[in-house]
Amino acid sequence: MDSNHAAEASADLEFIVQGAKAGQKLELRLWLRLLSTTKLISQEVRRRLRAEFNTTLPKFDLLAQLFREPEGLRLGELSKRTMVTNGNVTGLVDRLVADGLIVRGTLGGDRRVTVAKLTKRGSAVFADMAEAHEGWLREMMGDVDVATRKTLLGHLGAVKTSVGNHVSEAGQD
Amino acid sequence: MDSNHAAEASADLEFIVQGAKAGQKLELRLWLRLLSTTKLISQEVRRRLRAEFNTTLPKFDLLAQLFREPEGLRLGELSKRTMVTNGNVTGLVDRLVADGLIVRGTLGGDRRVTVAKLTKRGSAVFADMAEAHEGWLREMMGDVDVATRKTLLGHLGAVKTSVGNHVSEAGQD
Repeated sequence: MDSNHAAEASADLEFIVQGAKAGQKLELRLWLRLLSTTKLISQEVRRRLRAEFNTTLPKFDLLAQLFREPEGLRLGELSKRTMVTNGNVTGLVDRLVADGLIVRGTLGGDRRVTVAKLTKRGSAVFADMAEAHEGWLREMMGDVDVATRKTLLGHLGAVKTSVGNHVSEAGQD
Repeated sequence: MDSNHAAEASADLEFIVQGAKAGQKLELRLWLRLLSTTKLISQEVRRRLRAEFNTTLPKFDLLAQLFREPEGLRLGELSKRTMVTNGNVTGLVDRLVADGLIVRGTLGGDRRVTVAKLTKRGSAVFADMAEAHEGWLREMMGDVDVATRKTLLGHLGAVKTSVGNHVSEAGQD
């Protein structure tokens, strides 16, 4: 149900420009296709995380950040590095602590700074998820040849750089 | 502030695979770049919709769907075609009615079916927004040459098709 819904909604966005002549509105078509492709993959990743690991994308994202930081991260920093808001990060950390995947600890010798760290089990669980996640992406993109994927990576990099150059200054516009 | 946050968070996701050798984890890198590029553009579009039209992306999305359907759309259909949940679509429609941009009416001659339609003013306001929106995208992607943008559109289409072929059946997995 969700899957069909996503496909429909995603497909539908592109109808907006269907009346456009070829070559016209190229940037709009590109943006809508970026958006619909991202949504399609994201929804499938969420579905598989739920089905195979009984977890969510924000939890996966949070564990991924901690996996890279054996010393642990402060909650504010965790929020900044993920798409989890400051308001939600505490609850998410609490649930992951209850699951035995992370602990709260101190940073280095400094007892004043509280951080979240992966437990040994959390680290093993995340490694499993990350491997599966990589496999899903390989499978999902499996019909596209390697040369195309490489070219795409480069071209997306060019768009990302261009967009970065044209993003409004913070607080201005 | 928002802008920097988005850029940091987006950039950061790609660090996950920085340890990978060239050619390894290509699909993962591609996915993270898709995600970060989409987030960067989406955040800039939201910011400009807010700054220049004092509106939001869900409102813009909803108006775009109604713009294509002069007969109007039922609320359930509107929710399906946008990323707005059924629970939120009523409130959003109410606010757009209060703004004078849409009205509730009946579909064709059938008085039992209530739909939302753009008003004349709503149609004009949306046309302005859509033109600006297109211009923003042109500007944001302006450093990328047209040939690259065209190739990218095709390659993204290939990825989208591949992903569509590997998406779980509804209700399974």
